[in-house]
Amino acid sequence: MAQKPSIPKGTRDFSPAEMARRNFIFNTIREVFSLYGYSPIETPSMENLSTLMGKYGDEGDKLLFKILNSGDYLRDAPDELLTAHDSQHLTSHISEKGLRYDLTVPFARYVVQHRAELTMPFKRYQLQPVWRADRPQRGRYREFYQCDADVVGSDSLLNEVELLSLIDEVMTRLGINVTIKINNRKLLTAVAEVIGAPDRVVDITVTIDKIDKMGLDKVNAELLDKGLTQEAVDALQPLLTTTGSNEVRLEMMRNMVGHTVAGEKGLQEIEFVLNHVTALSLHSTVELDVSLARGLNYYTGTIIEVKARDVEIGSITGGGRYDNLTGVFGMDGLSGVGISFGADRIYDVMTALNLFPADTATTVKVMFVNFGDNEAARALQLMRDLRAAGVACELYPDAVKVKKQFSYAGDKHVPYVVIIGERELAEGTVTVKDMTTGTQSTVEADRLRHLFD
Amino acid sequence: MAQKPSIPKGTRDFSPAEMARRNFIFNTIREVFSLYGYSPIETPSMENLSTLMGKYGDEGDKLLFKILNSGDYLRDAPDELLTAHDSQHLTSHISEKGLRYDLTVPFARYVVQHRAELTMPFKRYQLQPVWRADRPQRGRYREFYQCDADVVGSDSLLNEVELLSLIDEVMTRLGINVTIKINNRKLLTAVAEVIGAPDRVVDITVTIDKIDKMGLDKVNAELLDKGLTQEAVDALQPLLTTTGSNEVRLEMMRNMVGHTVAGEKGLQEIEFVLNHVTALSLHSTVELDVSLARGLNYYTGTIIEVKARDVEIGSITGGGRYDNLTGVFGMDGLSGVGISFGADRIYDVMTALNLFPADTATTVKVMFVNFGDNEAARALQLMRDLRAAGVACELYPDAVKVKKQFSYAGDKHVPYVVIIGERELAEGTVTVKDMTTGTQSTVEADRLRHLFD
Repeated sequence: MAQKPSIPKGTRDFSPAEMARRNFIFNTIREVFSLYGYSPIETPSMENLSTLMGKYGDEGDKLLFKILNSGDYLRDAPDELLTAHDSQHLTSHISEKGLRYDLTVPFARYVVQHRAELTMPFKRYQLQPVWRADRPQRGRYREFYQCDADVVGSDSLLNEVELLSLIDEVMTRLGINVTIKINNRKLLTAVAEVIGAPDRVVDITVTIDKIDKMGLDKVNAELLDKGLTQEAVDALQPLLTTTGSNEVRLEMMRNMVGHTVAGEKGLQEIEFVLNHVTALSLHSTVELDVSLARGLNYYTGTIIEVKARDVEIGSITGGGRYDNLTGVFGMDGLSGVGISFGADRIYDVMTALNLFPADTATTVKVMFVNFGDNEAARALQLMRDLRAAGVACELYPDAVKVKKQFSYAGDKHVPYVVIIGERELAEGTVTVKDMTTGTQSTVEADRLRHLFD
Repeated sequence: MAQKPSIPKGTRDFSPAEMARRNFIFNTIREVFSLYGYSPIETPSMENLSTLMGKYGDEGDKLLFKILNSGDYLRDAPDELLTAHDSQHLTSHISEKGLRYDLTVPFARYVVQHRAELTMPFKRYQLQPVWRADRPQRGRYREFYQCDADVVGSDSLLNEVELLSLIDEVMTRLGINVTIKINNRKLLTAVAEVIGAPDRVVDITVTIDKIDKMGLDKVNAELLDKGLTQEAVDALQPLLTTTGSNEVRLEMMRNMVGHTVAGEKGLQEIEFVLNHVTALSLHSTVELDVSLARGLNYYTGTIIEVKARDVEIGSITGGGRYDNLTGVFGMDGLSGVGISFGADRIYDVMTALNLFPADTATTVKVMFVNFGDNEAARALQLMRDLRAAGVACELYPDAVKVKKQFSYAGDKHVPYVVIIGERELAEGTVTVKDMTTGTQSTVEADRLRHLFD
């Protein structure tokens, strides 16, 4: 019975060509994570719903993919929920596992569960898919990879410095020019305080965070809408309108909040980070952005966001410090700081700017044409030598028309084709065709592998 | 509210140490797949249930993890199924997606869905997790990785030869001594024919496949139980009792089935493969095992199974040729052959035989002790040089007691610790301690990175 096959909406197949480009990104990130002393861990795709629920807000709970219990899952389901078609309340009776929604909550769960085995500070990275039952749209998928690095168990701001340096290294290796924006939650707290709205810090930051998208006028209107006084909004203006160097912005903040406890602490932290980072002469621009908040509530200190400079797209990396990651699992007082690379957006940036190296399209370096059994046997021998020398190669498996074999090599972007016909077999030679230049030369079979040294 | 965190039964967290060992296996397999011209693809974790159901038998359908539809999933569910608590029939009304059960069915779906873009023969590999709601037990998990390589669109037996060579290369690189057993389904068909039970080939092969576990007597008893005549069982004995070289076994098979059409074809195929493989002088033993069936029904030609020689464990790799992989999705006549490495069992074998390289335990090569801000700033500079030279390193983030910092380095198996104290800072030197030998030396800071060339 034939079915027309398809995949669930919001999910993707990745072809060899896409995999090569994605792996270029993942391998670069992985390599830099390792160079900076982060070690990989992996957690299960499924977590208990008790681990996931309530960690992402009501909206997040709805976006969790839930897994139907196995077997006779309705056996003990309450009759009244079934007859009422009460989806919402039935769920906990028929599902106890869900797919992970991000890598942060599983990491917190991991740290608490394995605390006895961990050496603190614990630096881990994790590259795994996450799932969200969001409405799919351009650039938003229901299954996508996150690439996170976090260190927990250390308050030192040197961790922030190292993470900024790490981001710079990844972006430099990928060839993406970026601006790394930083801010500090304590400054935002101090700002709310000095404009006379200390209890409105979340409302204020959620709104001013949108200034890039909405512009100044709409931000001010929304602040008034949210009940801030005209006075408070006026007092906020230096924060929203000051342009210029980091030094100019720091000076503005010193004037605005330097006299408060939170402001002084926040300034001290951000200056420490900026000074160390400046000394490292990063390739990327590091910019103090006092309106940066990234959703917030989550972060308690440094906030980090990375934007590509040569293409219009949202944030491609973000992160920050959080003071109590593991509190919800009963382990208090563990501070952490982390970043997350957005692999899909980075892929889009690199595609738009044509930044992928040309050889990511190459699959094998050498294809052997197949002229029949005896010639194939010789090819198999030579391929063992080539592979021992690290040269990827393959024999066309069927002795079909040569034209078809060459067209296969062309489709796969194979740079060299080796021909062993009757003559070559008799003479102990091979003929090598360079598919880029079209030139062809015949060499001793023993010499073949040296051509690719 | 504190929760005691845990993970669903049958799933696993992987620590940095476990990841290092697992990645050693995965990277080895990946590298050899590439050297043999296989290209990676990835498919979504979720497939439509219409893609998965009915492909793994009734038992398999029950073992699929099904995902609850999002939103008000009960809205259109039939009342009669709800009131009857009819789990079995309700499922299709409240779930339309499932987690992939293996990599073969998604691959078949991929080939059919993308047929217009594929160059045939298509050689792909895939390393991704799969999920089965099996009862967890020692060595059996609900989430585990499969590592598959398949080629579709070519009937050539050279594909089999290449796959056997590939298996040999992987096992050699991993340091595992193996016996690669091969058989051919056509020989089994011919055997059923000559013993007068041509319609019982599945029953016969399922039973004789168990000879390693059950022994000859129980196999014979089960064959009689299944309704084979004593005559048929007697006629089968040479197959079950012949020992000796591949040549001896081939001779036995020639006598037994060489005169039948299927037997002649099967012998021709297996001899072709054995001759080519012998010419390649593999490190592994390749053995004709005429009772090998591997569940069957699936395979139509060559059957492959790999066993470790130095430890008692089941098959660690298997595969074979199938004639109609994509027929179920409406694309007929596509022959393929593939293998699948069992990463978890390979991990167990390597652990039992202590085959992991010692340096898989190493995370970073160098740790810098932290004596305070100025010293740390120098360390950050030097680390950029080291990392540019490919040396993984880290600075202990807090200026705590030196003893604590060294104990961190010890726990993480860091081989070198660099000390920059006040004296070193003033002199422009660094002191390097070799953690293995305990020796310590002071060098110019500029010379540091050359120590790790």
